[in-house]
Amino acid sequence: MIHLSKTDITNMEQRKRATFINALSGAKPAFLLGTVSAGGNTNCAIFNSVLHIGANPPLMGFILRPATVERHSYDNIRETGCFTLNHVPASLYQQAHQTSAKYPRTMSEFAQCGLNELYTDGFAAPFVGQSPLQIGLRFVEEHTLPVNATILIIGEVEHVFSTIPPDQSGHIRFDETANVASVDSYYTQSFLETLPYARFTE
Amino acid sequence: MIHLSKTDITNMEQRKRATFINALSGAKPAFLLGTVSAGGNTNCAIFNSVLHIGANPPLMGFILRPATVERHSYDNIRETGCFTLNHVPASLYQQAHQTSAKYPRTMSEFAQCGLNELYTDGFAAPFVGQSPLQIGLRFVEEHTLPVNATILIIGEVEHVFSTIPPDQSGHIRFDETANVASVDSYYTQSFLETLPYARFTE
Repeated sequence: MIHLSKTDITNMEQRKRATFINALSGAKPAFLLGTVSAGGNTNCAIFNSVLHIGANPPLMGFILRPATVERHSYDNIRETGCFTLNHVPASLYQQAHQTSAKYPRTMSEFAQCGLNELYTDGFAAPFVGQSPLQIGLRFVEEHTLPVNATILIIGEVEHVFSTIPPDQSGHIRFDETANVASVDSYYTQSFLETLPYARFTE
Repeated sequence: MIHLSKTDITNMEQRKRATFINALSGAKPAFLLGTVSAGGNTNCAIFNSVLHIGANPPLMGFILRPATVERHSYDNIRETGCFTLNHVPASLYQQAHQTSAKYPRTMSEFAQCGLNELYTDGFAAPFVGQSPLQIGLRFVEEHTLPVNATILIIGEVEHVFSTIPPDQSGHIRFDETANVASVDSYYTQSFLETLPYARFTE
């Protein structure tokens, strides 16, 4: 076992530390966040910090770092109140990664990265057509974390589009979903099994 | 494509909805959270809602649902100010899952589930010996989300124990890390590739 103390971490070169600390939370599911501005400019950005917040009401959240390119997404969410989270299959991870380039606000990552923009009536955010699981959410609340001004955005699930239905127990499984660690390292995953409810027996 | 509206979701049977909504955020890395009470009772609990919050200072967080068995963990964190997050390899997922059983407060999941308790000087939380990547954090802040009383706990990284060192760029990679979706469905993952920084070129 190697041991890195707080001092060792503080003394790392800045970019190495950023990659290393980001890697500690593991390879998390890649999502494409779809939004549109009040003026009609669409935006699509890759995220891997999506969270389950609660089932009733159905709530999901994601973490937005302060003052990055993702500000386009943030501004759009505050303008329209809507956003979509779209699962990235392994077949799409290179196009999804390209959305992290710094495109001008008026240029859409949908067109630039070959992603299909889909809409549903009464919902002001674009879904990603190639995604097998597309989720439409309405903004509920945001929290700015005092410790470093990171923002937690929470939305309520209003639409789910899926290539397969959930099974009788509510599980929904996509093989070859792409996960991403440290913003640039991609993984694919394979199902092992669903375990029974764990019980304590004396 | 199937479409589920907000009404369809609201009308789902309660347990099916809980599983389905939890599945929407995908299969996320499984972590064992290690804590100890002021009185010396250790606790170990499985979580899959661990987040990267920032690299400088090095911050990670996790989501704690309101009033569940994980209250032991919460009480311990507030008593000692310390907790550990330990990656679960695929070889350990069945033992890790068993920690979700409702053990009495005085009974340690470490002993009950065959997990090795390790300590480092000056840090009041147990690490999981079988984990290839063990992270020790000091509590920084908590946020109770008004929408449903879920709690976001944030800590600063003070110790990292790893079976392998980070590479020159800071990446650290563990094959066969276990991911979990909907609290009971386990996955393993495989590395695809690290992509270069995405650029916009006119």
